[in-house]
Amino acid sequence: IPVGQRSEPALSNEYLIKRAAALVTDSTQTLLSQTTYALIDSLTEYTKAVYTLLSLQKKYTSLLDKMNSSEQSAVWQVMIGARVQMKKLQEEYLKYEASWARAVSLSEMAAEAAYQAGADHASVTVKNHIQLVQIQVQETRELALRAEALLAASQSEEIMKTITEDKNNPADAGSPVSSLSEDVPEAYLRED
Amino acid sequence: IPVGQRSEPALSNEYLIKRAAALVTDSTQTLLSQTTYALIDSLTEYTKAVYTLLSLQKKYTSLLDKMNSSEQSAVWQVMIGARVQMKKLQEEYLKYEASWARAVSLSEMAAEAAYQAGADHASVTVKNHIQLVQIQVQETRELALRAEALLAASQSEEIMKTITEDKNNPADAGSPVSSLSEDVPEAYLRED
Repeated sequence: IPVGQRSEPALSNEYLIKRAAALVTDSTQTLLSQTTYALIDSLTEYTKAVYTLLSLQKKYTSLLDKMNSSEQSAVWQVMIGARVQMKKLQEEYLKYEASWARAVSLSEMAAEAAYQAGADHASVTVKNHIQLVQIQVQETRELALRAEALLAASQSEEIMKTITEDKNNPADAGSPVSSLSEDVPEAYLRED
Repeated sequence: IPVGQRSEPALSNEYLIKRAAALVTDSTQTLLSQTTYALIDSLTEYTKAVYTLLSLQKKYTSLLDKMNSSEQSAVWQVMIGARVQMKKLQEEYLKYEASWARAVSLSEMAAEAAYQAGADHASVTVKNHIQLVQIQVQETRELALRAEALLAASQSEEIMKTITEDKNNPADAGSPVSSLSEDVPEAYLRED
């Protein structure tokens, strides 16, 4: 067998693998974009819901003295609803966070495969894309963490106030606010 | 905000992620096919080269007594060439084996991402494809291992014969065949 005949299919295999690896980076980039968009979107919705609950809570605390018990109960119902909504949005963004993490891993592996196949440009493009979305997601995460910290601070403030009020007026012990606060830490102690 | 307005973009995100994950499985399958083809192709070329060397060696051993030293040297040169070619093809298939292993990992991860995104059909298709190529590669590997085993057996047989001949004819010590055999184990002791 002449040398030319054997080296030609070998070259062609290399070319086909290189092209296929570049195509994988294209598709992983689409997945990375979609999951990033979904994660940022859902994280933003969640942050909004945290602020909604925070503002309802501040309003409730400031009006506590001026409301009768049926008014308190009505505001309390609205707060429960806001809290359920916040939890629902939290679950949603955690789900998208998992998809996003998988897309990042896939993209990293595709970048490596492209690099090994000689598709350097495709490899570098994916790596830059990964860096970009990691920064975007980090920024959005920080906004959510800030909202969570504000809500946690407002809730401990409120607990202190309720304890003081309960001392002055023991009949109010077990008010909706104190029972709301009791199961709060579980929701805010998660580590990201 | 009405419920319908919020759930629509969420559904759409899910759909886009599912579609993107399915596209990733398409492209990883192309890469998997290309690397499998290249690996099987190069492994087959390597196996052929092992048989070429084996047959040259058998011929050399059987004609050893009938050849003069210049004839021996000529056959010896051909065997060196065959051995260099075999090593070259071995390096090539090891390179494709690495590409193939990366393509399998990528495909597995893509199958998982597709499954998590709800693209069950795409996920199952990739998993079946992975199984299929693993069987194909395994079969081709076994053919190569068998050739290597035959070559190794023929070489130890030859070493025995050379030792016996050297005892009868000490001037022949360090013949091309014994020096050929010396560095053989290194090439055949690799574990797959």
